[in-house]
Amino acid sequence: MAPVAPVNHSAVDVPVALLGYGTVGSAVHRLLTENADDIERATGHRLRVVKALVRDPERARGWLPDRSILTTDFAEIRDDPSIQIVAEVMGGLDPTAGYLRDLFAAGKPVVTANKQLLAQRGGDLFGAAKAAGVQLRFEASVCAAIPVIKVLRESLIVTNVQRVLGIVNGTTNFMLSAMEGGADYAGALAEAQRLGYAEADPTEDVGGADAAAKMAILASVAFGSRIMLSDVDYQGITGITPAHVAAARELQMVVRLVGSATLVGESYDVRVRPSLVDRQHPLAAVGGAFNAVMLQGDAIREIMLEGPGAGGVETASAVVADMVSIIGTQGTGFLQNDSTWRTLSKLPAGELAAPFYVHVRVDDRSGVLARVAERFAAHDVSISRFIQTPEDGGAGMHVVLHDAPEGRVLAALAAIGALPETRSAPTAFPVISDRGVAGLGWA
Amino acid sequence: MAPVAPVNHSAVDVPVALLGYGTVGSAVHRLLTENADDIERATGHRLRVVKALVRDPERARGWLPDRSILTTDFAEIRDDPSIQIVAEVMGGLDPTAGYLRDLFAAGKPVVTANKQLLAQRGGDLFGAAKAAGVQLRFEASVCAAIPVIKVLRESLIVTNVQRVLGIVNGTTNFMLSAMEGGADYAGALAEAQRLGYAEADPTEDVGGADAAAKMAILASVAFGSRIMLSDVDYQGITGITPAHVAAARELQMVVRLVGSATLVGESYDVRVRPSLVDRQHPLAAVGGAFNAVMLQGDAIREIMLEGPGAGGVETASAVVADMVSIIGTQGTGFLQNDSTWRTLSKLPAGELAAPFYVHVRVDDRSGVLARVAERFAAHDVSISRFIQTPEDGGAGMHVVLHDAPEGRVLAALAAIGALPETRSAPTAFPVISDRGVAGLGWA
Repeated sequence: MAPVAPVNHSAVDVPVALLGYGTVGSAVHRLLTENADDIERATGHRLRVVKALVRDPERARGWLPDRSILTTDFAEIRDDPSIQIVAEVMGGLDPTAGYLRDLFAAGKPVVTANKQLLAQRGGDLFGAAKAAGVQLRFEASVCAAIPVIKVLRESLIVTNVQRVLGIVNGTTNFMLSAMEGGADYAGALAEAQRLGYAEADPTEDVGGADAAAKMAILASVAFGSRIMLSDVDYQGITGITPAHVAAARELQMVVRLVGSATLVGESYDVRVRPSLVDRQHPLAAVGGAFNAVMLQGDAIREIMLEGPGAGGVETASAVVADMVSIIGTQGTGFLQNDSTWRTLSKLPAGELAAPFYVHVRVDDRSGVLARVAERFAAHDVSISRFIQTPEDGGAGMHVVLHDAPEGRVLAALAAIGALPETRSAPTAFPVISDRGVAGLGWA
Repeated sequence: MAPVAPVNHSAVDVPVALLGYGTVGSAVHRLLTENADDIERATGHRLRVVKALVRDPERARGWLPDRSILTTDFAEIRDDPSIQIVAEVMGGLDPTAGYLRDLFAAGKPVVTANKQLLAQRGGDLFGAAKAAGVQLRFEASVCAAIPVIKVLRESLIVTNVQRVLGIVNGTTNFMLSAMEGGADYAGALAEAQRLGYAEADPTEDVGGADAAAKMAILASVAFGSRIMLSDVDYQGITGITPAHVAAARELQMVVRLVGSATLVGESYDVRVRPSLVDRQHPLAAVGGAFNAVMLQGDAIREIMLEGPGAGGVETASAVVADMVSIIGTQGTGFLQNDSTWRTLSKLPAGELAAPFYVHVRVDDRSGVLARVAERFAAHDVSISRFIQTPEDGGAGMHVVLHDAPEGRVLAALAAIGALPETRSAPTAFPVISDRGVAGLGWA
């Protein structure tokens, strides 16, 4: 290996193309456009979509600033020597597989989100990419934005991963969570369909084929072998009844559709099964439409990755990450484009708003609570939950506040600390209860 | 960007060196040696440790096949043009920082596990690496084998991560878990020290400085800026009492030492605080000495990574992953070295052993349980837990079995299904309760 050459600091224009321009394709285009500065900061390159293959260029599309990029002629992409990377987001097995082979032959690296293509034709396609000396990346094919493929391929290379456990289908996990909440199978399915988590024909999800394809890909990467959909023994959740869910609860477990890939000597076992998961196990905490993958092996013991396993933007973010990985792993690598790092200021102390928990030790006398509550109110800090218990011969007040800037909370605490009934300086800790699901980004 | 050149299929010898040869250093050497085939399969290269800088070459070491690699002279590493990568596992700020600068000037990429070095001198070091055009990688500096740096830098490049929440210190998380179990602070600390989770002087852990350094690094990478240890406002767990733990329980929460990094417009807030975490929140499920990092942002909503955040082998696996990333991101990339993929056989159906849950619907008559139990025993399948409830006018038996090969379980179920009292074919699902922590790899 020769020493790595210095990176070129001037932004290099990288023309790219899409096969398909549906929900995922338009989200890829939007992410590449709106985050062009971030990508340039990390890699020194700007990725620009110059062509997108579609069947009907007249159809209404999502985000599409320039309709002239649409084409119905695959050759316009294959034969354009300026196009450096192609993202396949059209789906299907044919003609998709043939397109990929043609692109490899033309020397173009490909990023795909197509799990069935890889699970059924991956062996041939990887061979063709290899023969042509170009990359085929596929992070988006499994669990959308959860970067399990990159972690398995690049971070866990020497850890001998022997077992992969995964909740890799959000539809069925949502339904099983709903059944825990009291719904029956039909009700859970109807609710999943109403919320857009399940298709009108839910067979591929509830029957387990979707999860099986993902487990075939995960097992192939984890074990460094070729394991196809036909090698996976799968069963869906159609047989799960409220009696199973109730029995699981009695047994301190929950029902989940779990994919497992196990390496036993030189043999593998890959399957998808409804499973009972102990409440103490991290997979039991994965609720709703979320996905999680647990990787077990030497050196790492176990690592779990959890997140949204589906969605147009989530899938698109994985496609973009792969495109960026193809160009960004050269030179000094990611985020070392030092001259373009941005300068941020430190938020002034006290400005960050959060819910706080406060502990105050007071004399156990009448009127104390009113005086404490008045001090919070005077600083416009409102109380969400309150517990008072005997503590050290006096009273311990445990107060959970609504969101407030820390500065106001500390001012209220100073006032409370100055009350004659207060026995020691009150303490405040932040409360963590919100998740990133609501109110962040476009859904 | 020019099209990627075909990879060279013949294994290329890559001499590497270590600064330091303690627990982590010897584990790096061992992982590189024992997994050389895996690394070659993935990258086409073999990494070979040719020099290791130590203070005392006579001292007893862990795994060390050849004492002649040890040297006390840094110049032997700096000036050896054959050495392609250096891993810094010696710790400390000086002379470490100077060594790194010299290595960059000599054109050598560096991998480091040194969180305090990066949190206190990272700005200068990244600048020097950049100026020299070489890589500085640091996955092992935060949360050991959990690949959060790679995920942030390479997978989440366009997701505008706005908030990072982390349980990034295993010592304090172990102690807080022990306090939930009834221990007081002193007892929890003593237990952590007894098990090797806490140092004799635990100040850096319990005071929060260790977590603060990690949060400075995570915030720098997540927000693409320079955030140093001195920019982090931190508080440890020394003030946590059983009263806090009890109040948290009453409030349906748990106490955790949480690091948070928040981007508010062009300002950041990075802090470490004892926090109350809602029981429903994924961070509440992180127990014992494990670490977890939750990343929230556009496009991904939230992704959580969980795993062992410390340990010599775990840290070494991250060091090796970085070394492999430096050489492995060239050519067609990871695990596309198609000709060396291995062939595995499919495990014969029925051979995989697992604990199973079985559901049998039977007539509610005397003697049925005995006959069902006898069929399990006849196939050498033993029962761990059993619940019987009324079901559809008969009885529903819910049985959890001990580990057994699936073939024996299915044979027992066939015999049970043939009993005249059995109303429908019994069903069996696997049970997931074990974790990868015990019995896998060297600890």
